[in-house]
Amino acid sequence: MCAPAPLARSYAGGVFVNTMPRYEVLSEGSMAVLEEGWRSIVRDIGIEFQWEPALELFRAAGQTVEGELVKLDPDFVLEQVAKAPSEFGITARNPARSRRFGGDNMIFCSVQSAPFVSEGDRRGDGTFDDYRRLVRLTHMIDELDTAGYPICEAGDLPIDSRHLQMLLTLYTDSDKPLGTAQFNPVGAGDSIAMAELAFGREALEREPHMFGIANANSPLRFDERMIGSLMLLAAARQIVVVTPFILMGAMGPVSIPAALSQQIAEQLAGICLAQLVRPGAPVVMGSFISHTDMQSGSPGFGGPEAAIGLLASGQIARRFGLPWRAGGGALTSSQSVDAQAAFEGLNTMLPAFLAGANLLLHTCGWLESGLVASYEKFVLDIEIVRILQHEFSPLEFTREQLVPDAFAEAGHGGHFFGTTHTLENFRTCFYRPLLFSTENYERWASRGGKDATERARDRLAELEASYEPPAPLADDVRARLEEYVTRRQKELGD
Amino acid sequence: MCAPAPLARSYAGGVFVNTMPRYEVLSEGSMAVLEEGWRSIVRDIGIEFQWEPALELFRAAGQTVEGELVKLDPDFVLEQVAKAPSEFGITARNPARSRRFGGDNMIFCSVQSAPFVSEGDRRGDGTFDDYRRLVRLTHMIDELDTAGYPICEAGDLPIDSRHLQMLLTLYTDSDKPLGTAQFNPVGAGDSIAMAELAFGREALEREPHMFGIANANSPLRFDERMIGSLMLLAAARQIVVVTPFILMGAMGPVSIPAALSQQIAEQLAGICLAQLVRPGAPVVMGSFISHTDMQSGSPGFGGPEAAIGLLASGQIARRFGLPWRAGGGALTSSQSVDAQAAFEGLNTMLPAFLAGANLLLHTCGWLESGLVASYEKFVLDIEIVRILQHEFSPLEFTREQLVPDAFAEAGHGGHFFGTTHTLENFRTCFYRPLLFSTENYERWASRGGKDATERARDRLAELEASYEPPAPLADDVRARLEEYVTRRQKELGD
Repeated sequence: MCAPAPLARSYAGGVFVNTMPRYEVLSEGSMAVLEEGWRSIVRDIGIEFQWEPALELFRAAGQTVEGELVKLDPDFVLEQVAKAPSEFGITARNPARSRRFGGDNMIFCSVQSAPFVSEGDRRGDGTFDDYRRLVRLTHMIDELDTAGYPICEAGDLPIDSRHLQMLLTLYTDSDKPLGTAQFNPVGAGDSIAMAELAFGREALEREPHMFGIANANSPLRFDERMIGSLMLLAAARQIVVVTPFILMGAMGPVSIPAALSQQIAEQLAGICLAQLVRPGAPVVMGSFISHTDMQSGSPGFGGPEAAIGLLASGQIARRFGLPWRAGGGALTSSQSVDAQAAFEGLNTMLPAFLAGANLLLHTCGWLESGLVASYEKFVLDIEIVRILQHEFSPLEFTREQLVPDAFAEAGHGGHFFGTTHTLENFRTCFYRPLLFSTENYERWASRGGKDATERARDRLAELEASYEPPAPLADDVRARLEEYVTRRQKELGD
Repeated sequence: MCAPAPLARSYAGGVFVNTMPRYEVLSEGSMAVLEEGWRSIVRDIGIEFQWEPALELFRAAGQTVEGELVKLDPDFVLEQVAKAPSEFGITARNPARSRRFGGDNMIFCSVQSAPFVSEGDRRGDGTFDDYRRLVRLTHMIDELDTAGYPICEAGDLPIDSRHLQMLLTLYTDSDKPLGTAQFNPVGAGDSIAMAELAFGREALEREPHMFGIANANSPLRFDERMIGSLMLLAAARQIVVVTPFILMGAMGPVSIPAALSQQIAEQLAGICLAQLVRPGAPVVMGSFISHTDMQSGSPGFGGPEAAIGLLASGQIARRFGLPWRAGGGALTSSQSVDAQAAFEGLNTMLPAFLAGANLLLHTCGWLESGLVASYEKFVLDIEIVRILQHEFSPLEFTREQLVPDAFAEAGHGGHFFGTTHTLENFRTCFYRPLLFSTENYERWASRGGKDATERARDRLAELEASYEPPAPLADDVRARLEEYVTRRQKELGD
């Protein structure tokens, strides 16, 4: 009997491959406007780099440096950007968890940098225990490729040294690809040093073992901390995701074309610097563009402007031939895991799939404009990812899938429950939900009438109970890492 | 000062125009498989028509009729289908509410045919009062073009004659385009008779004044009631939306290509009949394809199969040059207005926009696989429609939108809140939500910590309090309609 056409998720080398067409919304005319926009910004307005070593590199390359302001020749920028590879891998300590950036590959990373966490009625500061729970959840959920680095803050650890314990947890409680303590050169330096202790300098040179985000301090500025981190990562041949952080109305104009031009200018300027540090350094064009609610002054997510921003950003990154990071992820401004949260999350995630994102940050768990990592939403968003992975799977019909025998067997006005074709395929023919329910009302009500958020909480408990740690680190590696952490904690005044 | 680039919804002649590109997922190879599939079904397996007058028409046209089974020459079918217009209008009693089907136009219709309603904790049989409230809501919400006909059942009215009161309400409490009491020839006949009393036969001949759904009794059957209704509407030159009702696994095979072939075969067979009744009769290719949860046996909505079904159905309808009805609408299997409901709703609605639906049934209010019309979800889904209407709006960038002055004014690392460009445009530059919130947690909590569903309930109360009836019917029209209703109620044993 011929096979049905399940929307089988397409994985290659462990990574989800988005085989559906790209949805392109920008005309050549619109692209030309953006081209004019970013060129004018880097050339006439310039980008501020608040870090002398960066300014030196630009000066040496013949660019105009006025104080901390760098005015760049757009064609020079493009020459540098062309040195960046369009695809590259990231090695995990478990080879089965290694991944590739670029092409049709999509890498999914948990929510990042949430100062607060919520679980049921609890909403409070993130703790080291929360951080570890979320790293473990990421480790055990197949749809997530990496925990990145700071899923939530470990607010109960000393601020200057907490990154050391947090980094160590990425090695001990997971074997997925690493993020970087990226928000200053101290953290980035420790991240690289620990990876060298774990894998050796040579392995890091062969292929990146970590990725780090370098946010522009939009508009049109990179500060010392971000540049320092970016330059360290590039020099060590680790992945830099150059990401302007643009909330239109606050860090960008209230005009989508202007904000997109700004985004390109900031992306390319950062990537250009990475290539000056080390030609061929692996980089990702990062986008994070949304709007400011002009009534509340708060950030807004999941609205039409962000969706258009995502669709455009993907198309732009393809034009430059670079891997693309989509801002989200299931982003939302909602304060609770409600219909708004699900709607805004999908209205960010689906455009990221449509536009062919290679890296999704904040895939799951993001709540309250990123202030909160929500345990329930963490699980709920996994359902969304799973559904979209099935939706964006290979779709080529064959004659065999027409199953004329099934029609003959069901008969006119009959049903297909009992046909041979159905009986042979019912287990695999459709997507099977993780926690979404089709139960009839009576049965659902008799089982407690739990909504999706409450069911996510139940599922969370099951998941956490079934956590199995990865293969332990080799004793000598573990000893070296622990020794490093202890020494650096002291040096950083812990 | 130049204008920003708000995503201004594009309306033409009162109807939303979807100017974004169509997202096409089927290759020419896949389309060829579907072509082979539907041709083989109509030719070899045939379609059952359980109504002698239809069989006579097919016989007279030289098709093979065996009992109630009609085997159709696919090329003959295409010849008939080619007689259907690709675009046409629907006249409302208020000319400003008249709409056009086809092209880039999208017509939005409320949830239809729900036997139950829910509001807060209440879940029970729909009543005439519920029906009237939902018609009024539809009337006052600009995003909705029509109430269709049976938003919910009026379970407290006698079953055989309730359609008369319900139809009359469409005239008295709204002035938007009419649906049809479509599920049997009695209802369809009364619908047409009342429209003739209100508008005159000549007006109905000039342009349709109502649309009705003709569901196939899938698989591959049209029963007496549906055919009777379809033939009456076509004869009266009113719009027929021919819609197979296919839940794969139950009314169709567990294979997307097979179910799509079946859908095309049933659509074309019904449209062919309409053209035999009256060449040039206005028709819409209706799709309603989803899956059956093979564990619970219940219908499932909002999953990947339905999304693919929608994207494919739109592409197919364009191939035949006919207006297309998307099944949903914000469809969901969820039992409550929760994250699942919002997710599944958007995962049905967004593909309908991507695939260029001309008519969206069940736009708002659908819950529990269509068993329930939810008041809260009715309001919530309007937010979704509004957001998507902004998202699918004209997007052509101009140089003026690059606003270089704003960058100069904000300065590097500055902000745009106070720039001239922002101050001149902040009111209109971004989408403004109806009930989605960006409030910070403290403010949100201090105002009651209401989730989106609770806010929808508040908004519902405001909306209902502000209902203003349409201009009253002319006295003589009202008298004729009321007289007709009274007479027919008696005839139908009320």
